[in-house]
Amino acid sequence: MLDLDSYLTSQKKRINRALESLLKTSDKPDRILEAMTYSLMAGGKRIRPVLCVAAAEAAGGNPEDAVPAACALEMVHTYSLIHDDLPAMDDDALRRGKPTCHMAFDEATAILAGDALLTLAFQTLASIELSNAEQAAKWLRVIRLISFAAGYCGMIQGQMLDITSEGRQLTLAELKSLHRLKTGALIEASISSGAVLGGLNSNKISMFESYAQNIGLAFQVTDDILNVEGDPEIMGKAVGTDKLRNKSTYPSLLGLKKSKDFAGKLVENALQALESFDQKAEPLRAIAKYIVERKK
Amino acid sequence: MLDLDSYLTSQKKRINRALESLLKTSDKPDRILEAMTYSLMAGGKRIRPVLCVAAAEAAGGNPEDAVPAACALEMVHTYSLIHDDLPAMDDDALRRGKPTCHMAFDEATAILAGDALLTLAFQTLASIELSNAEQAAKWLRVIRLISFAAGYCGMIQGQMLDITSEGRQLTLAELKSLHRLKTGALIEASISSGAVLGGLNSNKISMFESYAQNIGLAFQVTDDILNVEGDPEIMGKAVGTDKLRNKSTYPSLLGLKKSKDFAGKLVENALQALESFDQKAEPLRAIAKYIVERKK
Repeated sequence: MLDLDSYLTSQKKRINRALESLLKTSDKPDRILEAMTYSLMAGGKRIRPVLCVAAAEAAGGNPEDAVPAACALEMVHTYSLIHDDLPAMDDDALRRGKPTCHMAFDEATAILAGDALLTLAFQTLASIELSNAEQAAKWLRVIRLISFAAGYCGMIQGQMLDITSEGRQLTLAELKSLHRLKTGALIEASISSGAVLGGLNSNKISMFESYAQNIGLAFQVTDDILNVEGDPEIMGKAVGTDKLRNKSTYPSLLGLKKSKDFAGKLVENALQALESFDQKAEPLRAIAKYIVERKK
Repeated sequence: MLDLDSYLTSQKKRINRALESLLKTSDKPDRILEAMTYSLMAGGKRIRPVLCVAAAEAAGGNPEDAVPAACALEMVHTYSLIHDDLPAMDDDALRRGKPTCHMAFDEATAILAGDALLTLAFQTLASIELSNAEQAAKWLRVIRLISFAAGYCGMIQGQMLDITSEGRQLTLAELKSLHRLKTGALIEASISSGAVLGGLNSNKISMFESYAQNIGLAFQVTDDILNVEGDPEIMGKAVGTDKLRNKSTYPSLLGLKKSKDFAGKLVENALQALESFDQKAEPLRAIAKYIVERKK
């Protein structure tokens, strides 16, 4: 049996070390780099990077090979948080229990630090030392996957939908499509890019995709549930905010009980998708369960 | 003799056609795509894309092969304008004679449209249909060049320096380094990525670099001069704004006459760098002269 806690701890350490060294590309300290570091090293769950390296392992590869992609995914995720928190967007003052980037610095710095993290993500993906030309095609494919998920056909459109639908009651189908774009797309890209770098066997693509779609949605349903009944101490942020903002969520549309059943069903589907995989998929299986059982 | 006017017109058409088709990746109209299109198709000079295809030709390649990179460069440039114009940054209401993106739409949309253009630039560079694995390595190199120039070691740091040095008198060395970062880096990347895609002969790298550095600076010196004595009708924007904002510029530090001499000297250097090139470098030579002679 895999000890998920120690797996997550060791992967987080590995990712954090790699992120720190990627930020050290400039000797002279400057305000932008300070703001990038502040937000990137603020202690997130690193769920996307961990999914990426776990997918590389499940695909039969060396998880280490996927670390640059894992770092790029966390940079993209962090940039999106910095920009989403801005006064013109969600106007949030706290994130992970700390002042948001524009509160700790200022708006101009936060905008630029977000831009810089997004750019550094692609710079990281394009700066791998290649041992052969086939590898170049793999990294290009990873850039395609991540940019598509992060762009206006994915995450950015999701954020726009989220802003424009505030205060309006969504249908379940609309809510699902919003989340598929806003958080699902990048979670799916985390898994698919890890799988590509791990040397994905092409007849297993659809299984990875099914796993990814199910846990992407399960992640969001659980986020919604935690916003209702989570412990603000443990989460490092306020709860009940969705209700206050009159946001459509799974609990608001389905009720708490049915939302939990739904999250459980999604994890079941995700595990089923990995049925034919060997023990190298154990981390992916354990993460699927963790995603709905987590307390923050 | 090359007819630069018709060269520029035909290259602009080619680039605009390519940009339009790259924006048509979604069927359903949405606000983000509308804002991206509004700013991207607002009729800029397309100087970076034209430099990119001209460099590919000068390097002995087919300019058509560089068009996706040319488009990506214009997307990166446009995203930087959208974000720089934001109220938290330069707070500009007009750009190219039209309301800036956040004035025509709103701040949240402008932030997201900028983010989306930056992301689409990398998606474009990673989505080329490759005929062989060597090509993948070339495109990866182009992504590296552009992301480095656009990121916090280049353009973003330049914008930050620009904001923080407003109102303060800069030395000539500081001004030069600011512009090298803010506009020079992406102009240099336009030329170097075009050269890479055109099949650059490695012993010519330093000549391309020298050309690029000289015209990058000449471009900025001329911008400063136009801000003093340009015709607002022709330029589609106000002049005299640098003086009003008490900005350090070449004319403010050197005087108008010496600034013009300096720009002329830079173009001379750029032309000298291309001395050993054949007639395929004619467009690059003509653009160097155009950069200081332009009226907008």
